[in-house]
Amino acid sequence: MNEFRQLEKFDLSDYGDDFLLTWEKSLSELKATVYVAEILNELHKRRKSFRYFDAGLAISIFRDKSTRTRYSFAAAANALGLTVEALDEEKSQISHGETVRETASMLSFLTEVIGIRDDMYLGVGNSYMREVAEAVDESYKAEVLHQRPSLVNLQSDLDHPTQSLADLLALKTYFGSLDELRGKKLVMSWAYSPSYGKPLSVPQGIVALMSRFGMQLTLAHPEGYELVPGIVQSAERHAEESGGSFQIVNDMKEAFANADVVYPKSWAPINIMRQRTELLRDSDYEHLTDLEKSCLAQNLQHENWECTEELMKTTKNGKALYMHCLPADITDVSCKQGEVAASVFERYRLDTYREAGFKPFVIAAMIYLMRVPNPVQTLAKLMED
Amino acid sequence: MNEFRQLEKFDLSDYGDDFLLTWEKSLSELKATVYVAEILNELHKRRKSFRYFDAGLAISIFRDKSTRTRYSFAAAANALGLTVEALDEEKSQISHGETVRETASMLSFLTEVIGIRDDMYLGVGNSYMREVAEAVDESYKAEVLHQRPSLVNLQSDLDHPTQSLADLLALKTYFGSLDELRGKKLVMSWAYSPSYGKPLSVPQGIVALMSRFGMQLTLAHPEGYELVPGIVQSAERHAEESGGSFQIVNDMKEAFANADVVYPKSWAPINIMRQRTELLRDSDYEHLTDLEKSCLAQNLQHENWECTEELMKTTKNGKALYMHCLPADITDVSCKQGEVAASVFERYRLDTYREAGFKPFVIAAMIYLMRVPNPVQTLAKLMED
Amino acid sequence: MNEFRQLEKFDLSDYGDDFLLTWEKSLSELKATVYVAEILNELHKRRKSFRYFDAGLAISIFRDKSTRTRYSFAAAANALGLTVEALDEEKSQISHGETVRETASMLSFLTEVIGIRDDMYLGVGNSYMREVAEAVDESYKAEVLHQRPSLVNLQSDLDHPTQSLADLLALKTYFGSLDELRGKKLVMSWAYSPSYGKPLSVPQGIVALMSRFGMQLTLAHPEGYELVPGIVQSAERHAEESGGSFQIVNDMKEAFANADVVYPKSWAPINIMRQRTELLRDSDYEHLTDLEKSCLAQNLQHENWECTEELMKTTKNGKALYMHCLPADITDVSCKQGEVAASVFERYRLDTYREAGFKPFVIAAMIYLMRVPNPVQTLAKLMED
Repeated sequence: MNEFRQLEKFDLSDYGDDFLLTWEKSLSELKATVYVAEILNELHKRRKSFRYFDAGLAISIFRDKSTRTRYSFAAAANALGLTVEALDEEKSQISHGETVRETASMLSFLTEVIGIRDDMYLGVGNSYMREVAEAVDESYKAEVLHQRPSLVNLQSDLDHPTQSLADLLALKTYFGSLDELRGKKLVMSWAYSPSYGKPLSVPQGIVALMSRFGMQLTLAHPEGYELVPGIVQSAERHAEESGGSFQIVNDMKEAFANADVVYPKSWAPINIMRQRTELLRDSDYEHLTDLEKSCLAQNLQHENWECTEELMKTTKNGKALYMHCLPADITDVSCKQGEVAASVFERYRLDTYREAGFKPFVIAAMIYLMRVPNPVQTLAKLMED
Repeated sequence: MNEFRQLEKFDLSDYGDDFLLTWEKSLSELKATVYVAEILNELHKRRKSFRYFDAGLAISIFRDKSTRTRYSFAAAANALGLTVEALDEEKSQISHGETVRETASMLSFLTEVIGIRDDMYLGVGNSYMREVAEAVDESYKAEVLHQRPSLVNLQSDLDHPTQSLADLLALKTYFGSLDELRGKKLVMSWAYSPSYGKPLSVPQGIVALMSRFGMQLTLAHPEGYELVPGIVQSAERHAEESGGSFQIVNDMKEAFANADVVYPKSWAPINIMRQRTELLRDSDYEHLTDLEKSCLAQNLQHENWECTEELMKTTKNGKALYMHCLPADITDVSCKQGEVAASVFERYRLDTYREAGFKPFVIAAMIYLMRVPNPVQTLAKLMED
Repeated sequence: MNEFRQLEKFDLSDYGDDFLLTWEKSLSELKATVYVAEILNELHKRRKSFRYFDAGLAISIFRDKSTRTRYSFAAAANALGLTVEALDEEKSQISHGETVRETASMLSFLTEVIGIRDDMYLGVGNSYMREVAEAVDESYKAEVLHQRPSLVNLQSDLDHPTQSLADLLALKTYFGSLDELRGKKLVMSWAYSPSYGKPLSVPQGIVALMSRFGMQLTLAHPEGYELVPGIVQSAERHAEESGGSFQIVNDMKEAFANADVVYPKSWAPINIMRQRTELLRDSDYEHLTDLEKSCLAQNLQHENWECTEELMKTTKNGKALYMHCLPADITDVSCKQGEVAASVFERYRLDTYREAGFKPFVIAAMIYLMRVPNPVQTLAKLMED
């Protein structure tokens, strides 16, 4: 494989202990993750085991409900030989330092990987992951732990790297190579949904990652649905560095014109998300309910932000690739009025499944690159057999 | 082993991707399942591993509470090298097409087996399993999935094949061979229980399966406790084809006379089960509660349908084998008035445990026959060692 | 390793099927458990697998919430090649004979180990474990089970052997050898906590175990917080036999003087615990709530039982080792007034983590010694590689 030869040239010595944010990784490290995921996917297709561990635990901490991410993490861990032990918390909470520090160590004694999903509260999820990382660092240095487990961000308030990298692999597969992404127009667009409090991490992850591959990125959303400013700035810088472009528009139609790829998806207004964190910090559950109502009302003002057949006709040759992290809110199927028209979704349904199918392999690739000494040589041996 | 030589002669090329209903399987396929289960049981007794997979997932979907079936599936999966990932739904529900289709694929990327228990609503469970099967078929054909996982029915509204085949293996063990079942009288009888809404799948599974082995089958129940008509017709046809017989009586005493095997067990009136599904479809939870009361009242009219010492004396030499899928409602032990007298149950208690003990091996055998290429040759090698 | 040579000399032929109470084990068996735990810990540190099983289940039954014991059991099982299947009961209950007997067998068909935590009700937990043990004995003798699974007490009302043996290994590591414990003063002291109904099993486990190694044991608690009389008598006898001493005082200051090790920890008044069991037996949930209030009120009378810096200064050179089973109630950190001052806890925090880190290896050692034929020779081979 051509990808494998590229992989051998990358310097992966600083890949790091954790995978929390794509913008903390070098371009080589990101490409390596995608290439390794692709190779593991290919091995699985040939029904060839890429199990590496004889035993070991993968801890999962989900502070939000999840079916598909939970499955993807379980599948990745299992394929590598690890067993998932789930620590489910009944209720999202702003965690206290001492408890985080202690629990992180208590769950790490024989643990290779800790996967965390904490995406509900802006300003909370990524901070929590940092606290866990610091706790296991301290315990490893003090020889409380024999090994320092690796953290995988399974979705935080800031980024959703296992999703965005699976999306990147889907784009690579669709267009033929990462180089082919150069100059392609990708639209990350807000879309209407009758649901509340969807995190900003997917659109943030998409603009921060795809801008590194020379794409013509357009972020579209109504006023009030801005992303976290620092991440938007990163996307702008990435676009400049990679020879691509990045623009923000407040009109879905304008955005879709001549697009190669569209990613229409709902998220919550940033001010609502900020207030939500404040209310949670004060355990003010009554006003949290009020906030939900005002969020839904605000969304309703933009009900016409739907990915319709008409809009799709305005894309490149009327045939842009439609992407979604699933589940989508489909008009007349999963709700009365949603993100996407039923006929559009149905035409791309299996494509979205395929997109999702890369996620277990992306997670496995992250673990592989963080935990396996000499990962490229180890893969080379696997492929020779 | 004699069974192994028979196994080598069977044509198992059409065993199929799924195991949903015993009446969809040929006699050879059913015998093969029992023989392989027996061999795996024997290997385990000798503490010999029959692990086949290096890694891989087994998904379990339980839409009803379960301890022992959950354990049996976990034990079977584990013995073969698979890890169970449980997808528990909080509440039984009539599922919607789009969600089933998507979820089925999302949980199948690295999955070998999906075990489903959905037995609460007549007309629902088996349909749900079909929908899942169609979804993974579609995704496999579209190359969304690298492999098409196999479904195992862990109890539907129609059949409970892992139970009935475990029961068949228990009968084979008790009488010495499947041929010895020919002409033996087995009574599948309704019995009183102070509980509500027990599914019809066990009695249906028993009459549909045991009628294929030349047994003299008697189904006994009060009026109003009929089984699903199509399954009764299958049992009649099977009895005719296999040289056995099948009769229905409305009197427990008449049924027990000269029986070789008795299987007294409660189930709900079929009309109650039909109304229940309608109410659930309409999300009419209030009337569901009323329905429960009228079911209990109807049961109470047949409180004397108990497997007593007196009744047992009327069986062949007073020594019929008592069977039960467990847990039994035992008079004066688990309830005031139940399916079976305490002294009868106690005499056969360890027999019912032994019967239950075959279930993990039956599930393992189904998976083995569906997933292992050349299962008989692979088993042969295991046995040589 | 010196420990390994000692291990080879022990007679471990009567180690037993279960590990329920340390006082049922010989001194050699206890030492062997600690030594094997230490060796497994060392192998893990060198990243060497000590997996023994190819497949097999470990059942966990937690009748009380748990994060760290659950993790420790999962880690131990996984490291040995077993997969945990959790049977969680929603609510603690006085279990009925028939259900226990049946469930125990139903969960044992392919099971190597059953770990049980049942510590909430005095007079209940240990009895429950005995019932499970008798049930699997009966089923094994009747050939319902191919093998008789081993029980591990993960905390009962009487003892917490996985904790006390992890503590013993921590002491061995701290002082250099088990022989070095001889003559050292260990204070097991009650301490104030604003929480209700903490079991007596940790202090009972500590005095019953540490008294066997020639330590100078002091048990300190306010009046009304006595331990179960039979266990106190055992500790007295053990102290005499081992050449140590055992005394009870009702004053924390008196106890701490010149101590080498202090273990300040809250537990409930024994009369409260006795009443609690009675109320539960009668399902009298209303009075259970009243009882909680009176327990908290009684604790409040001894709010000054806190492990302060002042008290620590009175220990041997002001430098006694502080131990805790975690989580500790830390004044001004996890509660307003608790068991230990924040500065004391912080100084020993990583020591308590290290102490906890031995628990998975202690559990693995118990399983190893109960399930592996010729465990010492098998370990010897592992160490040669």
